[in-house]
Amino acid sequence: MNPLLFTLPGSEQFGAQLRQCLPCEAGELQMRFFPDHEACPRFVTPVTGRDVILVCALDDPNAKILPLYLAACVARELGARRVGLVIPYLPYMRQDSRFNDGEGVTSRHFARMLSGCCDWLVTVDPHLHRYRALSDIYTIATKVVHAAPAIAKWIAANVANPVIFGPDAESAQWVAQVADAADCPYTVLNKTRHGDADVEVSIPDASFWVGMTPVLVDDIASTARTMIAATQQIQLAGMAPPVCIAVHPLFVGDAFAALHAGGVERIVSCNTVAHSTNRIDLSPPIAAAIGEILAEMAGAQPSISAT
Amino acid sequence: MNPLLFTLPGSEQFGAQLRQCLPCEAGELQMRFFPDHEACPRFVTPVTGRDVILVCALDDPNAKILPLYLAACVARELGARRVGLVIPYLPYMRQDSRFNDGEGVTSRHFARMLSGCCDWLVTVDPHLHRYRALSDIYTIATKVVHAAPAIAKWIAANVANPVIFGPDAESAQWVAQVADAADCPYTVLNKTRHGDADVEVSIPDASFWVGMTPVLVDDIASTARTMIAATQQIQLAGMAPPVCIAVHPLFVGDAFAALHAGGVERIVSCNTVAHSTNRIDLSPPIAAAIGEILAEMAGAQPSISAT
Repeated sequence: MNPLLFTLPGSEQFGAQLRQCLPCEAGELQMRFFPDHEACPRFVTPVTGRDVILVCALDDPNAKILPLYLAACVARELGARRVGLVIPYLPYMRQDSRFNDGEGVTSRHFARMLSGCCDWLVTVDPHLHRYRALSDIYTIATKVVHAAPAIAKWIAANVANPVIFGPDAESAQWVAQVADAADCPYTVLNKTRHGDADVEVSIPDASFWVGMTPVLVDDIASTARTMIAATQQIQLAGMAPPVCIAVHPLFVGDAFAALHAGGVERIVSCNTVAHSTNRIDLSPPIAAAIGEILAEMAGAQPSISAT
Repeated sequence: MNPLLFTLPGSEQFGAQLRQCLPCEAGELQMRFFPDHEACPRFVTPVTGRDVILVCALDDPNAKILPLYLAACVARELGARRVGLVIPYLPYMRQDSRFNDGEGVTSRHFARMLSGCCDWLVTVDPHLHRYRALSDIYTIATKVVHAAPAIAKWIAANVANPVIFGPDAESAQWVAQVADAADCPYTVLNKTRHGDADVEVSIPDASFWVGMTPVLVDDIASTARTMIAATQQIQLAGMAPPVCIAVHPLFVGDAFAALHAGGVERIVSCNTVAHSTNRIDLSPPIAAAIGEILAEMAGAQPSISAT
């Protein structure tokens, strides 16, 4: 029997796109809020004995985590066979070390909480810096979707004569993947972070790429200060303002306006978080990852029928 | 060594009152929020080897739960001996049954999450309707503070010739306690709930109490619709508008204004949730409960010094 797919509030559009690529049945989940804001999830579609998929964009995680956590617990309480979460943008991954005395590694605690309410997790390019893999901190089955192939495809189809720029050394590996798939050159800038919204970026000699179209790719665009600093350096090096691509377009506060004000005209993003710049649809690879993890968890017998 | 007491954002005033009744040391907890709203708690005061108390009002629980959960986890990560939560108003207690198909018993899931981050919990009059005690759903040590003695004391000092009204049959037991301690009569109204904010209340023959000052006591004032309906019935029975007392003054939306508009002039509450009506200070009995639970957990040897 195909799995049941439910979307949490705010993820309806992405859920609809996902359903078009995934052999599944659309389930109805009502998220009622009492007058005092307590959440009361209700599965209108019966889940007993079924594979349940909950789709939830987790930007602004503090407000969204409890309704999601409770929905997953209720699905289990109602006898779902397995409960999986599709969280295209996985928050709380950057606090992967104790950066100051008295702080903690909150990524571990967040992972433990989520691992306690479900059986599996599918996400897109989580911020893996000091962790080797999600299994370092998540105790459930996980599957990571890489945005690089879809980004490369978009660049190849939409940008003439591109050269890819990664904002920092950490980005080298996957910027290389994008460049390889898009069949174009790439380079990586040197980034120094002085604070949450205070970033310095320096560029290597750019004379080699004059005349090409710079494409700046970053994983998380939060304040966008990294993109803004990189854009300045790229322009100072004599190039045109870059096309900016974000895997996870959080764009908090004035970030999007500030990036525009810096001279960037083309800003596109993957649809891991709903944003007006969403141009790169990741629902096909996410659907494929869901199919794989369901098949793996069911052993030799895939729990969803072949497409 | 005395325990370290930390307050979460929004609970500073109650934390300060509590410190005046409890042998403890004030600790500094910084709750930093990244631009994308992720929380990063930092214990400025070292907690290693110490008993840690986290004080947090949990009205609006969805927004506050993750910072609290992470703070508790970080205190443990940093080597705190024990981590306890003081949550004067404990949310998510009313969904104690599956009231509709497809819903779940979210009180259990919320309890499991909280039980997973700390060693003990102190709260005030939790909504125990279908549960016998918090230990039915919480797996950690818990201690419940009863507001009745403090409420009775306030009534005896501030209301002439009082008669206490409880809004429904569930309230009978503790309304009787208040009346007994205040040495005055009481009665209980008949309540029928038609919806979250749609409540019908009927009153027994009130001729006996004409000339007395009605005092309406309820545990949770959320929409205040129960108080408003009871106030109408009390007035229809020929009595003056009641003095209204709430243990937990949530007063969501227009609740407070609507109660006022119904003719009620005196509205007072316990300080389990910060509100302009807070007149009944529960920090002394809460401090006593904290002392007891710390002593119990330490075995024969109390972990805090005697007052």
